[in-house]
Order: sequence, then C-alpha cells, then structure tokens
Amino acid sequence: MNTLIALVKNAGKLYNASKPHYEACKAAFIEAHAMLASRAAYSYYGDYFGNPVVHYNVFRLEAKAKAKAEVLVTRPVRPDLFLENAADFLQQHDAFIASLRNEPQSWTAEQKLTASRVIYTAVMSVACCYDLWRRSSRKTPGTFLEILIAGILQKLLPGSVFTKHVPLATFLPDDEIQATAGEEANLDDDSTSSEEASAGGGVSTDLVIGVLGRPGGIVVPLKITTRERIVQPFAHQRILDSACGVGVYQSLLVCMSETQLDDRTKTVKQVCVPGTIKLFQKYLAPLSGIYYCDIPQRYAADDMKGIISVKSVGDFFEDLSKFLAQHSSNRV
Amino acid sequence: MNTLIALVKNAGKLYNASKPHYEACKAAFIEAHAMLASRAAYSYYGDYFGNPVVHYNVFRLEAKAKAKAEVLVTRPVRPDLFLENAADFLQQHDAFIASLRNEPQSWTAEQKLTASRVIYTAVMSVACCYDLWRRSSRKTPGTFLEILIAGILQKLLPGSVFTKHVPLATFLPDDEIQATAGEEANLDDDSTSSEEASAGGGVSTDLVIGVLGRPGGIVVPLKITTRERIVQPFAHQRILDSACGVGVYQSLLVCMSETQLDDRTKTVKQVCVPGTIKLFQKYLAPLSGIYYCDIPQRYAADDMKGIISVKSVGDFFEDLSKFLAQHSSNRV
Repeated sequence: MNTLIALVKNAGKLYNASKPHYEACKAAFIEAHAMLASRAAYSYYGDYFGNPVVHYNVFRLEAKAKAKAEVLVTRPVRPDLFLENAADFLQQHDAFIASLRNEPQSWTAEQKLTASRVIYTAVMSVACCYDLWRRSSRKTPGTFLEILIAGILQKLLPGSVFTKHVPLATFLPDDEIQATAGEEANLDDDSTSSEEASAGGGVSTDLVIGVLGRPGGIVVPLKITTRERIVQPFAHQRILDSACGVGVYQSLLVCMSETQLDDRTKTVKQVCVPGTIKLFQKYLAPLSGIYYCDIPQRYAADDMKGIISVKSVGDFFEDLSKFLAQHSSNRV
Repeated sequence: MNTLIALVKNAGKLYNASKPHYEACKAAFIEAHAMLASRAAYSYYGDYFGNPVVHYNVFRLEAKAKAKAEVLVTRPVRPDLFLENAADFLQQHDAFIASLRNEPQSWTAEQKLTASRVIYTAVMSVACCYDLWRRSSRKTPGTFLEILIAGILQKLLPGSVFTKHVPLATFLPDDEIQATAGEEANLDDDSTSSEEASAGGGVSTDLVIGVLGRPGGIVVPLKITTRERIVQPFAHQRILDSACGVGVYQSLLVCMSETQLDDRTKTVKQVCVPGTIKLFQKYLAPLSGIYYCDIPQRYAADDMKGIISVKSVGDFFEDLSKFLAQHSSNRV
C-alpha cells in the first residue's frame, strides 16, 4: 500500500505544481488495480432491488491478524462497469485516451460507455484500495478523482484555461479575506488541518474550465458520491450567480455513484434525494447537468427530466465541449 | 450508559409525539452529569492560544480492557462555562428555568451567563458521555441539543407555535414530492437509514417558531459545532427567501462551540471560517444572528461586526423575543 500512497501523492504534487500529471495518475490506478487483483478477493455482494435489479460486487480481505475472523469489504462495485481484466482495462484505457486527442464534437454510445468504464475502473480501484488498506484517509479517493479528471480534460481541451480551485471569497468586495492556505489538493491523511483548510481557507470550487480572455467558465464539482454534501455545488453556483451574474459560470457535477452497502440485509442501496435536488435546482441555483458512471435509477426517472439532466460520465465529455463552445460564443 | 441512552430516547420520543418533554431532557442530562462525575476524570487538557488564552479541560477514561493503556478523552470542555459541581448546576438550572416563566423582555448580563452555563453544562454532559461510552452514535448529542432547546423555548414562549422541522420541499409547486419519512428527531445509532432520512426525506429546517395565524417565523438551526455544515443554515435561509419572499423567515443559528482537540500538540483549536461566513452572508442569504455558549474569539473580532451578529446563547433568548415581537407586528 505504501507504493500506492506514494504514487497518489506524487500525482497530487505534480497537479498542485501545475505540471503534467496524467502519467502519474495512471501509474497510481494501475498499481491499485493490480493490488486488488493480487491481494483481494472480488465477488458478488448483493443486489440493488431496482428496476432492473443491479448486481454489485465488493473486494474482500480477510483480516487474519485480528482475533476474530472479520472480513473487510470495500464499497460496492458494479461488475458491468468495472473492467476486472487488466489487459482489457489497459486496452480500453488507451482507446479512450487516444479518442480524446481528436477533440471529438460528438461521441458514439460505445465511446461514452468506454469512457465511463475506464474512469469508473480507475477511480474505484484507488478507492477500494483505500477502503481495504487505508481507511483513515477517507478523503483521498475523492481528491484522486479530481486530479484524474483534470488530467483527462487537459488532454481533451488543450486550448482551455484550467483553474484548480476558484476561491469564492475573492468575490467579496473588501480585502479582509483570510489568507487562503491549504487550497491545493490535499493528499495527506485526513487531519484537523485538512478539514480546517477546506473549510477555513475559504470556500472554493473544484475544477473550473474557461476560455482565455473571457470571464467565467464551466465549474466541474467532482464527488465520488454526494451524500449530505449535495448542497455544495448548488450553493457555489448560487454564490457565483449572485456575485458575477447569472450565466457567467455554469456547473456540471460529476460523480461515480450513490451506492451504499446494507450489511444487515446484504443488499446495496442507491441513496437518492430527488426532492432535495428539485428544491435546490429551483430555489438555490440550477446546475447545468449531473453525470454519473453508475447512474442512480431514481435520477433517471421521468419526474426528474425537465428539472435537471442526469446522464453518464461519457456524456459529460460531449456536453462539456458543447457548453464551452456556447460559452466562447455567448460572451465578449 | 444504557440508562442514559434510554433517557435520551425517551425525551426524543415525547418530543416527536409533541408531548411535554423538558423533564425527560432534564433526567437525561442530570444522569449524564452524574455519570461523568462518578466514572470519568475531569482535568486540564490544553490551551487555545488566542487573546486571551483559554484553558480547556476534558473528561478522561482509562480503557483498562484494551491491551495497551489507551486513554479515551472527550471533546474539549471550558471549565469556566461547565458547572462541575452538581448542586451548583442544579441551583443555576432552577434559577434559569424560573426566570423563563416571567417571559423577560430584557435579560441581565448575569442571567445571560447563567443561561449559557446551564445549557452548555447540560449539552456537554450528554455529548461527553457519548464521546466516552457510545462513539458510534455521533449524531445523538446534536439531536439532544435540539430537543433541549425546544423544551426551553416552549417554556419561554408558551404563546408561540412550534414546528419541529419544516420540510422545505413543500415549497415546491408540484406534488411530486417524496414521502418525507424519517423527519423526526432520530435517536437511534447513526445508521444508513438515518443518513438517508435526513438527506433523502427532503431537506428540512431545525426548529421553527411562529405566531399563530401569521405566515413565516424564526428558524433556529441548532448545531453543537458547525464544521463543514456551516453552509446549511445559509442555504435553507436562501431557499426560504426564494420560495416565500425575503423577511418571511429569519434564521438564528445556535451552537455550542467550534473547538477541536489537537492531539499532537495537546492544544485546542477554535476552527473558524470568517471568510466563508462573510461570503455566505452576502451571496447566499443573511442569517439574523449566530449564538454560541463558547463564542469563538475570531467571530467576536471587529471585522465581523456589521457583517453578522455573533453573541452568546444567553443573548439568544433576549433576541428571539425581540425578533418574534417584530415578526408579530410587521406582518398581517
């Protein structure tokens, strides 16, 4: 696990220094994928009883060291999205990366599925390793997701301007703003200072993509799963709307899944909050889209259409190019 | 600890059933206070290096059962606010409760300090017991705070209308809102269902106090400490402003403290986010006041004045009466 931790930290360090970091990300998720293959068991856990029923696997680790025979399991993993075979994963990965270079204006359904699978496999590999061997670093997989997507987008949109975190406090008129220490991707173990920095260093967005010489841009909040943090992207969008005017910034929220193991019943839940999303979309500020690798069924239901667009992470790449093109042409 | 858990659950049950519950709360915090006195050591932990320096204590428990001699400690406790002596606590408690019956329009500085001390002692007693003997029920102390303050306010304002949680989704125009299961105070151990209910059952406010026959009221979000949840009361106020019009609802946020142990340095931090509060106050929606038992020094600083009023929980009672009176006279 120390190798993986070092690789993830290295990717974060390069990212924070605004140096090319995609190869470092790749080294980390390849290591994670291999670790799971060699040191954990991958098997069926239980079903999400939706329509259709969805099967979920987990990686398992028997903790031999402990007195009682506890079995440590990871978060749920969708076997139809997770590319278990290493050669298959690498091949689809390379195809996906190659397709990015062409800056495609429209993506085929197959390309979109490949994109979702590759990103899901990369992120879940790292996340599951931390689930098994480094539970204390709860926030690191989320940070890794951000670094990885940033690396991919820099390949897809070489002409765009990337900002890591826009500190929203800069929109305050006075200059009494606290020094915003610690706004870079934090890959140390979760600690007091990490929490203090993320809260106290001022609220900041995740990735922002813009066009050179034009104000505003596309905000891309990235979360492995939203949980009670679902309010954040809507609140940030509201602040941007209030401070900069409606339409200057748009938010596209990118997530992996909303799943949760139910240990008692050995089933998987998709934790969805459709009423909350409707409420925030209407009364806080509208997001321009939400994208998942493992799309929660509830969010694909009819009553959500017309309120907010919930699509796959594969669709995200296509939509992002579209929104950026609009952004370039709309504004002076 | 089972006795305390049963007492806390009983108070929650009565509260959820809208039955008189203050005596049940009192039984719980008296039990908690006695448990700490008889079964834990109470002593100096470290300082918060502010101006002035503030000393903090903790309750400690030597975990004899475990192989290595770990010492379990509670959250930091301010000895100048926590009434350690049981007789003193009871006497000040009774004086505080007696003063509520007179529905005072203005409170003396001494009455305010007594109010802060009594509430701090009651809430921290329960919270510290859960820190030592029931770490898994992380959310219960926060729920207890809500139940306790609701009980006190019902004594202070017998003519007011209390609503436990206003589900904000009712402001959505359509009727497609999910059944809002689980919106009552949840005193079971933290569990999947609890999280799902609090998120998925629709966003709801904490306590709302209104005047019979008039729309709107005073929202009282209650948090032992805010941390990354500081966005919630501002987001809720924004939704209420958007849905009902500005001025119909006002929010008064009530908290215990913003302290955090630093185990490495044996000091205490006051985790403050002044830039975030300024940002939310300006661009999300303004709160009408924030009240603490243990007021963070940073929030009492000059640059916060004029942006938001941060005062003691003793001041809260006076201000609440004032805001309610305004509310009655302003609206038809």
